[in-house]
Amino acid sequence: MTAEAVAVRAAVQELSSTADALRRELDVRWPADGDRMQEIARYGLLAPGKLLRPLLLVTAAEATGGSRDKVVPAALAVEYLHVASLIHDDVIDGDDLRRGQDSVHARYGIPDAIATGDGLLFRVFSAVAECAALGVPEAAVLAAVRVLAQAGEDMCRGQVQESLLAAAGPQGCSLDAYREMASLKTGALLRGACRAGALLSGGTPEETDAVTAFAEHVGLSFQMYDDLLPYLADSSVTGKPATSDAANLRPTFPVLLAYRTGSPVVRRRLELALGGGTSPEATFAELHDVLVATGALELAQVQSRAQAERAKARLGVLPRSEAADVLAAVADLTVRRGA
Amino acid sequence: MTAEAVAVRAAVQELSSTADALRRELDVRWPADGDRMQEIARYGLLAPGKLLRPLLLVTAAEATGGSRDKVVPAALAVEYLHVASLIHDDVIDGDDLRRGQDSVHARYGIPDAIATGDGLLFRVFSAVAECAALGVPEAAVLAAVRVLAQAGEDMCRGQVQESLLAAAGPQGCSLDAYREMASLKTGALLRGACRAGALLSGGTPEETDAVTAFAEHVGLSFQMYDDLLPYLADSSVTGKPATSDAANLRPTFPVLLAYRTGSPVVRRRLELALGGGTSPEATFAELHDVLVATGALELAQVQSRAQAERAKARLGVLPRSEAADVLAAVADLTVRRGA
Repeated sequence: MTAEAVAVRAAVQELSSTADALRRELDVRWPADGDRMQEIARYGLLAPGKLLRPLLLVTAAEATGGSRDKVVPAALAVEYLHVASLIHDDVIDGDDLRRGQDSVHARYGIPDAIATGDGLLFRVFSAVAECAALGVPEAAVLAAVRVLAQAGEDMCRGQVQESLLAAAGPQGCSLDAYREMASLKTGALLRGACRAGALLSGGTPEETDAVTAFAEHVGLSFQMYDDLLPYLADSSVTGKPATSDAANLRPTFPVLLAYRTGSPVVRRRLELALGGGTSPEATFAELHDVLVATGALELAQVQSRAQAERAKARLGVLPRSEAADVLAAVADLTVRRGA
Repeated sequence: MTAEAVAVRAAVQELSSTADALRRELDVRWPADGDRMQEIARYGLLAPGKLLRPLLLVTAAEATGGSRDKVVPAALAVEYLHVASLIHDDVIDGDDLRRGQDSVHARYGIPDAIATGDGLLFRVFSAVAECAALGVPEAAVLAAVRVLAQAGEDMCRGQVQESLLAAAGPQGCSLDAYREMASLKTGALLRGACRAGALLSGGTPEETDAVTAFAEHVGLSFQMYDDLLPYLADSSVTGKPATSDAANLRPTFPVLLAYRTGSPVVRRRLELALGGGTSPEATFAELHDVLVATGALELAQVQSRAQAERAKARLGVLPRSEAADVLAAVADLTVRRGA
């Protein structure tokens, strides 16, 4: 085992134990005997998930000198925000499977899925505000409120941009437009989680900016790899059908890479595949063929890993700590899922 | 003209001038040349509306010793919250008309309507947080954040309860269950607006509780009257089809009143009308007949006005001021719409 592998293994154990603690906290705060909205929220929150965003918030807080106990409500808050966005995204995309089980609207209907998602969005801010009672200065709590409100709005803006890009097809979506969309849709909340953690723990401006930049690159790496995953793994790993992106004609990183670097023949094949006339399965199979044949699948993995490396490089300004090592490991793990 | 009528007229002028100022502020903050999400938000925010909630926040702040200038962003915040809930409600109910124009999803599609509604919900908290830069103490801003987050979550809970009550039909919905639902769905944000205004302006606990209780009764009066309005006025006043509630089989105050006070024959007619087998127009016409014949329409108006009187009675603890008079006039105006 290399030194890096040992460090990653230790980090995984640390993350796993923190995730268990956060999951117990969710279980206590969202009991099974609540009213209907609580029942629906519990179903969404306690579905098997990695808790990546709350783990980032807690770890960024620790890596910038804070203590975990004071930021747990804010860590739950970013999970509320994430799960609310998943619930609404699944309504928008008509995805009936999420985290390996029925999506919320598939189980409880669209009206209550929309309303419960909204309820969770509001709970984000009640939860962050709790940190004041745990001893975090009010100015820092208010700064975290601002950061998460901005992150949430950016996510929504990314969602709207994605619809526009999907409608434009690969010919109308540059790699820069893709990166901007991914930076909003996925990066915003990862940045928000790390930045809020650092602000709540009283990190210096340099430390706060460093964990924010770290999260920016993790976000890009994560979204690029997420786009790849259906072509690398089966749906038992991703928790959703491999054909979901293809069915929604969503612009994905490897496809754009193939389109922007490919020959006219490749471009024509992709335009036809994404023209909407075929079944999701046929679209997916054709995309898969093109991605393998052009090497775009391989190139996309390389670029995703490069973003993870850039993320780790930004951690240099932090004092050495176990938490900083865990952040570095998170960057590595984003590009090892399903592998 | 009676003294009361003179006071109401002065209050209406004051409200109208404040509403114009708030509308100008919205127009500046949501320019027509923004990105797509801003365009959609602008469409929803600048549709002709009464701006009741921001007016309540501003007036409650003034009535508890505060100045308008420091709370304008929070006033806009409660309008963001309200408009976001309207956008999502229209998606849920399939209502294509709102405020006399196409609803947001009818114009921009369901995906972007959901995402833009979410974006506005996040902007609520960015906007409230702005008050700190205007000189409101951070503790008070954080208190307002908590109040609006709770109000928003209560609204969502009320929305979910309403679906359950609609499914239960009049036989499964007591007047108490209706009042609880209305207190959440409509009352919560009116309470939140008044309470946030008082907290931001540094009102005493007694004053803060008084404007909150005032808003609780205004909320009940408002929702009861809103339920009546389709039977009293045409859709040019309500801005939505008179048959909307009937089409959604929503439990409404006059219908429940008729059901709970009516004979077995009346109850049977209402059960049949709300059984879902007839057109919205036929359902509406039958409900209208029953409400007039049983006197429930008249009784519902009386009870709605009684809530408005109870609202005004709670203002007694406030120091005499023009703003307190305006609050009283708002209570009167809630039961005069469309008259």
